[in-house]
Amino acid sequence: MSGEGDLIARLRALAPHPAARGLLDDAAVLPAPVGRDLVLTHDMLVEGVHFLPDCPPGDVAWKLLAVNLSDLAAKGATPIGVLMGYGLTGDTAWDAAFVDGLARALTHFNVSLLGGDTVAQPSGQARVLGLTAVGQAPAGGVPDRRGAKAGDRLWVTGPIGDAGLGLQIALGQIEGPRRLLKAYRLPMPRLALGRALAPHVSAMADVSDGLLIDARRIAAASGLAVTIDLAAVPLSDEAKTLGLDPLTAATAGDDYQLLFATSSVDVERIAAEHRAAASPIGYFEEGEGLALVDAGTPIDLPASLGWEHGA
Amino acid sequence: MSGEGDLIARLRALAPHPAARGLLDDAAVLPAPVGRDLVLTHDMLVEGVHFLPDCPPGDVAWKLLAVNLSDLAAKGATPIGVLMGYGLTGDTAWDAAFVDGLARALTHFNVSLLGGDTVAQPSGQARVLGLTAVGQAPAGGVPDRRGAKAGDRLWVTGPIGDAGLGLQIALGQIEGPRRLLKAYRLPMPRLALGRALAPHVSAMADVSDGLLIDARRIAAASGLAVTIDLAAVPLSDEAKTLGLDPLTAATAGDDYQLLFATSSVDVERIAAEHRAAASPIGYFEEGEGLALVDAGTPIDLPASLGWEHGA
Repeated sequence: MSGEGDLIARLRALAPHPAARGLLDDAAVLPAPVGRDLVLTHDMLVEGVHFLPDCPPGDVAWKLLAVNLSDLAAKGATPIGVLMGYGLTGDTAWDAAFVDGLARALTHFNVSLLGGDTVAQPSGQARVLGLTAVGQAPAGGVPDRRGAKAGDRLWVTGPIGDAGLGLQIALGQIEGPRRLLKAYRLPMPRLALGRALAPHVSAMADVSDGLLIDARRIAAASGLAVTIDLAAVPLSDEAKTLGLDPLTAATAGDDYQLLFATSSVDVERIAAEHRAAASPIGYFEEGEGLALVDAGTPIDLPASLGWEHGA
Repeated sequence: MSGEGDLIARLRALAPHPAARGLLDDAAVLPAPVGRDLVLTHDMLVEGVHFLPDCPPGDVAWKLLAVNLSDLAAKGATPIGVLMGYGLTGDTAWDAAFVDGLARALTHFNVSLLGGDTVAQPSGQARVLGLTAVGQAPAGGVPDRRGAKAGDRLWVTGPIGDAGLGLQIALGQIEGPRRLLKAYRLPMPRLALGRALAPHVSAMADVSDGLLIDARRIAAASGLAVTIDLAAVPLSDEAKTLGLDPLTAATAGDDYQLLFATSSVDVERIAAEHRAAASPIGYFEEGEGLALVDAGTPIDLPASLGWEHGA
C-alpha cells in the first residue's frame, strides 16, 4: 500500500520530538517530567457520530487533537505529545488533507506526534480515529471532577450552544454566521486559561457532551447536588440573534468551554486576563442530582441532558 | 443507553489504580516514575482485519492488551496501565464478554485500566478497538529499533509461524492442535524476557507483522543490511508436524516473539533462564535491505514480506 507508506512518511515529519524516535520504533520513550505528574487522556471520533462525512478532513484532524487537548486543559495540564490511531479507508486524498490539517493543529498547539498506529478499515465504513494526549500536570495539583464542595458556585468560561448551532448549519438545517460553524468544527481548547484557573478551582471539567450532563457528572463525582440557572447560561450574540434558547444550548455539547466549581472570587478576573468571560451559572449543595431554575423558577429537566456517548 | 452505562460501571472495576481517578475524571493523572523514562505505545485491532468476527470477545480483549504489552516488552518496559478506546456496536452480550476477558487479561499482567473512551459505531460495521499502554522504562536505557550494529547477529526468542497456523485453523482452512489456535488468539507478550534482554541488545522489536518485515524494519532503521537464514528459523514441533515451511512462517505475522540484534553471547543463557529458546537466525552488515538464504544458499524474497498494515 504505497498510500499508507506515503502517509507514514508524512506523519514522520510531524514527529520531531526525540521521544517519538522518528516513528521508527515500537513505542515512544518519553523522559518523565521531573517532579510533575503526567496527565493522560484518550478520546475517539467516529464519522457520522462525532463529525459529518462531508467535514473537511483537515478540520477533523483539528477536532481530534482539540477535543483531547481540551481534557488536558480541564486538568490545567500542558500538552507534551500525542499518539494517534488512524483508520485507513483507502481514500488517499482524504488522508493527505487530514495530515495537512493535523500538521497545522500540532504546530498551533506546539505538540509533537509521538507514535500510534495506522490500520486498514473495511472500505465504505465510518472512519474511526483515536488520539491519546499526554500532558504535564500543573505544579500545584491536578483539578479533579470529584473535588466540588457544598457552597461552591459553578462557573463556565464562555458561551454555550455555539457548536450546537454550528452543527445545525453544517447539516443545512439553519443558516448562520461562519463563526458558529467554526465553533463546531474547530473548537479551541482553553489550555492557558485551564492552567491559570487550576490552582483556584475545587473541581474542573470541559463541556464536551453538554453543559447539563457535564455539570451533573461533576456533582455526581463529588457526591453533591448542583443547580443551574438557565437564565445565567452565557450565549453569544450570534446565538441570541438566531433565537437560541438556553435549554437547547445547555444540552447541545461540543462547546469545549471549561466548567468548574470554586468559592474563589478571583476567577472572573483570571478569566478576563485570558480574554474570556467566566460566568457563574449555578451552585453546589449537599444532596444529589441536577436541578434547573430559570431566573429562580424551578423548571423540569429535559428528557435528554446531552450526548450520553461515554465517559 | 443503559448498556453503555453498565459497561462503564464494569470498566470502573478494572481501574483500581489511583491514577485512573475511578474513571470519573476527564483524564488519568499518573505520578511520573522517579528517574525513569515512560514508554508509550498505541495499537488498534479492527474486526475482520486483526481478528475474525467469530473470535470469542474475551480473546479479542486479551489480544488487544497483549499486542500493546508486546511493544512494551520489546522495549524492556514494565507495564503501568492502559487507556482503551472502545467502539460500541450495540451488542451488549459481546461487550460483557469482552469486559470479562479484559478483566482476566489485566489481572494476569497486573495492569490497571487508567482511562479511555467508549464511542458509538454505526451498527453492522467492523468493530474498531484501540489501546494505549504506558510502561516504565528499564533503568539501563530503552532498546531502539535503530541501534543494530554491523556484525550483530539477529535473534528470535521462540517459534515463528504458530500464530499463522492458528489463523488457518480459525478460518477452517486446516485442522490442528488447539495450542496453535491459542498462539493466534491469545498471544503472550515476552515481558520478563524483554526486561532481561534489554541491557544486552543493540536493537529490539517484537514480531507482529511478520519476521521478515520486522527484521527489515530493524535493518532499515539502523541503516544496515540484514540476512536471514530460513533454515535457522525455529518452528514448533506442531508446526513441523503440519509441514509448515520456514518461508511461510517468516511472513505470517502475529508471533509476538522478540527479535533483537546483539553481539552478546549471553542472550541464549538469559533466554533459557526465562524458559525460552533464543535462536540466532541471521546477521547485520553494512549495506541495506533484506536477503534470505536457506542453509547458505541465496533464495529470492517472496512477493509479500508480511502484513504491511502500519508502523
